[in-house]
Amino acid sequence: MADTIRVTVWNEYRHEKISDEIAAIYPEGIHGAIAAYLRGLPGVEVRTATLDEPEHGLTEQVLSQTDVLTWWGHMAHGEVSEEIVDRVQRRVVLEGMGLICLHSAHFSKPFKRLMGTTCNLRWREIGEKERIWVVEQGHPIAEGLGEYFEIPHTEMYGERFDIPAPDTLVFISWFQGGEVFRSGCCYHRGRGKVFYFRPGHETLPIYHQKEVLQVIGNAVRWAAPVKGPAPTFGNVKPLEDV
Amino acid sequence: MADTIRVTVWNEYRHEKISDEIAAIYPEGIHGAIAAYLRGLPGVEVRTATLDEPEHGLTEQVLSQTDVLTWWGHMAHGEVSEEIVDRVQRRVVLEGMGLICLHSAHFSKPFKRLMGTTCNLRWREIGEKERIWVVEQGHPIAEGLGEYFEIPHTEMYGERFDIPAPDTLVFISWFQGGEVFRSGCCYHRGRGKVFYFRPGHETLPIYHQKEVLQVIGNAVRWAAPVKGPAPTFGNVKPLEDV
Amino acid sequence: MADTIRVTVWNEYRHEKISDEIAAIYPEGIHGAIAAYLRGLPGVEVRTATLDEPEHGLTEQVLSQTDVLTWWGHMAHGEVSEEIVDRVQRRVVLEGMGLICLHSAHFSKPFKRLMGTTCNLRWREIGEKERIWVVEQGHPIAEGLGEYFEIPHTEMYGERFDIPAPDTLVFISWFQGGEVFRSGCCYHRGRGKVFYFRPGHETLPIYHQKEVLQVIGNAVRWAAPVKGPAPTFGNVKPLEDV
Amino acid sequence: MADTIRVTVWNEYRHEKISDEIAAIYPEGIHGAIAAYLRGLPGVEVRTATLDEPEHGLTEQVLSQTDVLTWWGHMAHGEVSEEIVDRVQRRVVLEGMGLICLHSAHFSKPFKRLMGTTCNLRWREIGEKERIWVVEQGHPIAEGLGEYFEIPHTEMYGERFDIPAPDTLVFISWFQGGEVFRSGCCYHRGRGKVFYFRPGHETLPIYHQKEVLQVIGNAVRWAAPVKGPAPTFGNVKPLEDV
Repeated sequence: MADTIRVTVWNEYRHEKISDEIAAIYPEGIHGAIAAYLRGLPGVEVRTATLDEPEHGLTEQVLSQTDVLTWWGHMAHGEVSEEIVDRVQRRVVLEGMGLICLHSAHFSKPFKRLMGTTCNLRWREIGEKERIWVVEQGHPIAEGLGEYFEIPHTEMYGERFDIPAPDTLVFISWFQGGEVFRSGCCYHRGRGKVFYFRPGHETLPIYHQKEVLQVIGNAVRWAAPVKGPAPTFGNVKPLEDV
Repeated sequence: MADTIRVTVWNEYRHEKISDEIAAIYPEGIHGAIAAYLRGLPGVEVRTATLDEPEHGLTEQVLSQTDVLTWWGHMAHGEVSEEIVDRVQRRVVLEGMGLICLHSAHFSKPFKRLMGTTCNLRWREIGEKERIWVVEQGHPIAEGLGEYFEIPHTEMYGERFDIPAPDTLVFISWFQGGEVFRSGCCYHRGRGKVFYFRPGHETLPIYHQKEVLQVIGNAVRWAAPVKGPAPTFGNVKPLEDV
Repeated sequence: MADTIRVTVWNEYRHEKISDEIAAIYPEGIHGAIAAYLRGLPGVEVRTATLDEPEHGLTEQVLSQTDVLTWWGHMAHGEVSEEIVDRVQRRVVLEGMGLICLHSAHFSKPFKRLMGTTCNLRWREIGEKERIWVVEQGHPIAEGLGEYFEIPHTEMYGERFDIPAPDTLVFISWFQGGEVFRSGCCYHRGRGKVFYFRPGHETLPIYHQKEVLQVIGNAVRWAAPVKGPAPTFGNVKPLEDV
Repeated sequence: MADTIRVTVWNEYRHEKISDEIAAIYPEGIHGAIAAYLRGLPGVEVRTATLDEPEHGLTEQVLSQTDVLTWWGHMAHGEVSEEIVDRVQRRVVLEGMGLICLHSAHFSKPFKRLMGTTCNLRWREIGEKERIWVVEQGHPIAEGLGEYFEIPHTEMYGERFDIPAPDTLVFISWFQGGEVFRSGCCYHRGRGKVFYFRPGHETLPIYHQKEVLQVIGNAVRWAAPVKGPAPTFGNVKPLEDV
């Protein structure tokens, strides 16, 4: 665990190129904001990749050098090729890469593939307040947070969130308009780990907020691969002479 | 829960038509053996369906009248059409149908789709002994069993079994040759429930064994749908006037 | 599972005897309100027991004839004798009795004993609104509920609720004042099952509300014991001749 | 997480003083063997404590300076004072200390207190072989292990192990005599984390085995406290002006 963690920050990167309003909030793209924060952490090496690059920037070589992949997408989930989704899934399940899915990436192809459910939810965009409660204080993703933190204006995501029950539920959100949401969800999938984190929106400066970035940083450390052998699958000989 | 549970017992039904040896063990097919047992239970209504029927016997109408689907496949997983897999997944996740995957159905398309992992494992076919330990005695799927039961001769399946950690782990198997296996795995997926149960093999009379059938019967009751509304997804108004 | 479920509804039964206001809401005691509802369910046999009876009404004989025990206490947790707590714990863990702890019973001795944590929480009594969201729709405790239900005026309980993460989390509450709470928590403990359900208060008619009673009824069915042997503990001979 | 982890290795330390055979295997005591290994790890500071010291070596001051406590006991569980058990429980639940319970510490008072069940099991002492399978390869406690490791001669512990289902199950053991066991069990309890690890015995050199020590070292890192506030319990004001 002492080694450098190699992170690839992936972004759909469309909203920022179409909307001046969004570009003003994220002049280097959402990936730029997240990458800038992660670059400030010790022992973390960061690159970025975006949808419109060849192979969405996720070539076999890039993925093979990625310990943790963070994913943000929203308007163009459908344009992500099945081949790249296969590749991401394999890299997580068979080789242990961590995957951190942010906000609207609940509907991204890699997340839906790894969950097996629709990952659908209720939503509302009126800029209401969100209060994120820490319900598992001993989990490393909660390191350094208070009992809760607030996002003053956000898009609401509400239950029923159609996901498998997380292995560990770290955060639950309260929304001013009356909903709750499982906002920080940890999963083991094969040799890899997956974290879903709710906050974030293209028209709001949420990826500039201290606590949100801190959670993403904590999640990167939690999701880093664990050293061990590829599992043996298929036909095997008896281990016992019985 | 007092209503009748409508079960569809699905079988690939190929081995039995090709091999005299297998046909001798399962003269009515593996589905026939399982269906015969379930028909003896009160409050259970049973039909069967097989791969080579139109739409694999799983038309929209059949599925819409199915509360619990049991699945056995082995040599022809690849011939199951993606459209039917989509249909099964939707019926589980959005409408609450139970799905019980038996033995080599660990590699069936519906199970892999709902798990999101490879569902791969180690295996060996030397007819060794399996001892299935009950590790969650209070679970209804263990109703009426002893502390363990044995299958005298079986195909071995061993860890690492590449599945998400079950919501509830009911059984762990011991094998004579040296392996262990998570043999009874319960999952919530959307509104539905999924149970994976390891025992069973085409060349062995395992689906004639009392305890194995009893577990399948218990699982049918556990996996039956729960009455409730389809969840509201998408854009919603505030519930609070704030 | 077809047999009758024998329920003992336990109540501290002090508030109702001291306060006219509370007695007006629960003229037969809180236990009376809950018992009356359960008596209306098919296949359920109900008795009640209260703190001031000899052995708190929970003699060895009563407990040995109890399949599911519901528990409400608040002002006199400390008066429950350790001997009776031992007895309840043993009956759950070793013999499979279900235990349903209601509202302020989060601080009852049997619940704290079975959880191993402080079971402490935040609270506030201003009669605010609670909205209880169903997050695991396929669980039998949610049978027949909508996507959520509301309690118009309630005492608030908020996170961090110091409990072990439930085996299954069925409900999450939203409170008008800004908190969230894990309101429906399922646990296996030994051969038995434990359900914690948040709603209920002595000064509010919450145990007359349809959905609340329905959940308690569902929980009784879910928590009923599963038939099986007492586990073998201690020194054993090898099962294999190896 | 970059800070030093302060470990206290606790040992009952009776067997070693009574039996020459045991003293020959663990000349510095079982605690000495474990402490020697941990002292070789970077960023870990180690002290030891034993039953016969005043306050069992676990004074308020020692515990307040302990990030992770490892516990081995066997013949004298009953001599551990309730006051010290209270202290350990509080330090785990309210302040986040990690607790690692080894082998026969399944029956130690702190473990039973934190689990809420009997923690009983089957056992047999004929020096049979154990094979420990890694079932959650992505968990940090499995770091650096193979797919399984073996203990050539051990005391058997078998299911039904009367514990709450672990939050994460990392290891399952196979025993030559026919049993299985959940051998590596992770729990969140309050702000703290608890790990139960099966291997180890006073008459066998198991705490000199490389993989066993490696797991204990991994568990120390996993169980280290997470920085954050003590939770607010009790009566609170509304967070919202509603």
